[in-house]
Amino acid sequence: MYSEKVMDHFTNPRNVGEIKNADGIGEVGNPKCGDIMKMYLKIEDGVITDVKFKTFGCGAAIATSSMATELVKGKTIEEALKVTNKRVAEELGGLPSAKLHCSLLAEQAIKAALLDYAKKN
Amino acid sequence: MYSEKVMDHFTNPRNVGEIKNADGIGEVGNPKCGDIMKMYLKIEDGVITDVKFKTFGCGAAIATSSMATELVKGKTIEEALKVTNKRVAEELGGLPSAKLHCSLLAEQAIKAALLDYAKKN
Ligand code: FES
Repeated sequence: MYSEKVMDHFTNPRNVGEIKNADGIGEVGNPKCGDIMKMYLKIEDGVITDVKFKTFGCGAAIATSSMATELVKGKTIEEALKVTNKRVAEELGGLPSAKLHCSLLAEQAIKAALLDYAKKN
Repeated sequence: MYSEKVMDHFTNPRNVGEIKNADGIGEVGNPKCGDIMKMYLKIEDGVITDVKFKTFGCGAAIATSSMATELVKGKTIEEALKVTNKRVAEELGGLPSAKLHCSLLAEQAIKAALLDYAKKN
């Protein structure tokens, strides 16, 4: 049902945690299941130098967020805005269609964190 | 939003895994989110001597299953049938109402595993 990459990122999620004094914080919720995702960004000279996330969400939410943080780390804000949930799912080798809504959380949380950063600067 | 006990069982879930040659296996799905839970029971002389679970479900599903496995381990089949999701949620110090549907997975998976055992014996 799940690809090897999904299982890898679910059982060993990358970049889990918080960033104290983050430059941008995004918090989004999944209306379908009530889950919440929080994303923290450290941004220097327009580049995302660090990113961490926290969620109580399901395995698909954990795996997509883990992959999404890897895709935006070291990237510029403009590049990060192009990381869609479709792209993340592709990098993971696909997701069951019933779980695609969970993968939305990662994209939305990154965009919310970038918006938070933009508002503050 | 979540009690300390929920966070404890989410971050350090008890009895995660599979049992080879389990006497009863229950697999149930959450229609609301598409998540799946699998429960394995080892039963000797009417007593649950071992129990393990696997899920790709959210933190609430993980925490309730972890607590539920602790509640049924060492118990008779009759005692295990009395472990409801309400009881599990109480032992966890409560769950947000949006996540109560996730806690159903644990109760249903145990009952499905006991039914599987009954059918085989
Ligand atoms: S949201 Fe799927 S089990 Fe909780």
